[in-house]
Amino acid sequence: MIRIVEVGPRDGLQNEATPIPTERKAAFIRALAAAGLKEIEATSFVSPKWVPQLGDAAELLARLVPPPALLSALVPNMKGLERALETSIERIALFTAASDAFTQKNIAMSVEESLQVFGEVAAAFRAARPGGWIRGYVSTAFECPYAGRIAPARTVEVARRLIEIGMDEVSIGDTIGVASPREVRALCRAMAGEIPTEKIAFHFHDTRGTAIATVAEGLAQGITAFDSSAGGLGGCPFAPGAGGNLATEDLIYFLEREGIATGVDLAALAHASLPILSALGRAPVAKAQLAALSASPPK
Amino acid sequence: MIRIVEVGPRDGLQNEATPIPTERKAAFIRALAAAGLKEIEATSFVSPKWVPQLGDAAELLARLVPPPALLSALVPNMKGLERALETSIERIALFTAASDAFTQKNIAMSVEESLQVFGEVAAAFRAARPGGWIRGYVSTAFECPYAGRIAPARTVEVARRLIEIGMDEVSIGDTIGVASPREVRALCRAMAGEIPTEKIAFHFHDTRGTAIATVAEGLAQGITAFDSSAGGLGGCPFAPGAGGNLATEDLIYFLEREGIATGVDLAALAHASLPILSALGRAPVAKAQLAALSASPPK
Repeated sequence: MIRIVEVGPRDGLQNEATPIPTERKAAFIRALAAAGLKEIEATSFVSPKWVPQLGDAAELLARLVPPPALLSALVPNMKGLERALETSIERIALFTAASDAFTQKNIAMSVEESLQVFGEVAAAFRAARPGGWIRGYVSTAFECPYAGRIAPARTVEVARRLIEIGMDEVSIGDTIGVASPREVRALCRAMAGEIPTEKIAFHFHDTRGTAIATVAEGLAQGITAFDSSAGGLGGCPFAPGAGGNLATEDLIYFLEREGIATGVDLAALAHASLPILSALGRAPVAKAQLAALSASPPK
Repeated sequence: MIRIVEVGPRDGLQNEATPIPTERKAAFIRALAAAGLKEIEATSFVSPKWVPQLGDAAELLARLVPPPALLSALVPNMKGLERALETSIERIALFTAASDAFTQKNIAMSVEESLQVFGEVAAAFRAARPGGWIRGYVSTAFECPYAGRIAPARTVEVARRLIEIGMDEVSIGDTIGVASPREVRALCRAMAGEIPTEKIAFHFHDTRGTAIATVAEGLAQGITAFDSSAGGLGGCPFAPGAGGNLATEDLIYFLEREGIATGVDLAALAHASLPILSALGRAPVAKAQLAALSASPPK
């Protein structure tokens, strides 16, 4: 069984300056769930000072009771966890990287410091939500924009530490969208025996057109969980139209054509991000989304 | 050794209504060659009544003497061949499909009729250019927009016939950009023993984001020649920004990252299609092209 973790509402919106009304975000999440997506990263409890777009996290989650899917939220630190625990969220995600240069720039900590903080956050979350679920992101798992190529052993080490401090899953991210299949193969081989395969997800970016090829290699190596973003929202594209996050539409099209049932209705999914794109003043650009919209145009 | 057949100047421009001056096309082809591309389909001898954009085929080829790369031209019939033989072209391409419904719509012949015509065209070309080279396109090799899925045995049959009537290479096309890796694997297995692997090229479209994954599968099956189009020009995209032809930039990025030397300078390639895109009033949309331009912006 393949798991798809939809990250559009969080990862797709966090870098967008245009404010999106909370109700439109809630409708987006409901539409994603209605299309058949079962796990959705809904928002982030990062400080609203840093990411004003997601400053409505608590209000958004309050509008999604009962949740239409398994919803998670990014939690950057203990302060974020305090805010998260004022909501009914049962699933959180923590964010570190394989590169100290990257974590220093993004969360002002070394990787080791982030692991210390996350150990405390995870323990506090477990105490408050005994049935809860935690994923840890390992960004720049293949290459860092500041430090260059990352050795597989380094990514394995960070992923292993995250599992040790209590993560239920690690999401291995090709943050700048550079990896090709042989790097995925090498990393999977390095993780084998170190990290249980069922606790690994891949988070690929399609910045250079390689995302589906890397998903195919991940599948071939036994990985069964993949992150993606409806409409390809987010993921630091170079320009409008440039690839950022792997588009969920491309992922669903590929999986279904390979004969892997996803339970997701591609036409419904292709429509789900249109109100968000419209609010951002953008036309859709994700390939399988455009193809699906061509076959099933907006009314 | 991997061969890349650049089809942008022909396949990329044939559906464009905006007239491109002949000298700009010649400069495009010179820039592609300067970037390191060794085989370029330059133009077509289809009737200028049907494709006015390529009505300057003879004039274009005259500007490219001596040729900066191995240049080929599409030839639809004996009349097109007569025009081609008035130039110095040494390489031609003929176009049929695996689906009668598709050839009827596009060239007003059944597949069988097209093979009859091409047999005569190939023989006449061989007589006139004894050192010449001929490729045959098999369009809709996986699925036809009118007839649906195509059985691998049917594609193999058409490809085998093309080899029998004298093609040096068959280019197997996923014309509507639907194939996923398992279909490529199945077709390669069906072709094994029927068509010499070194005479097979794949022509993938990235309409739904699967092109690089299908290239990867083709490589895994021993195929060493792939068609692509600089800037992703052409290939019947649904909308500006939608995927048509596999972008040569995405192909080169992928191959090089996999450790397969191509001899192509990706930065130079990313710039090569900019004057054409500018003439068409379009911004670049190919992913690896945008990434390369971001690292090496136009001056």
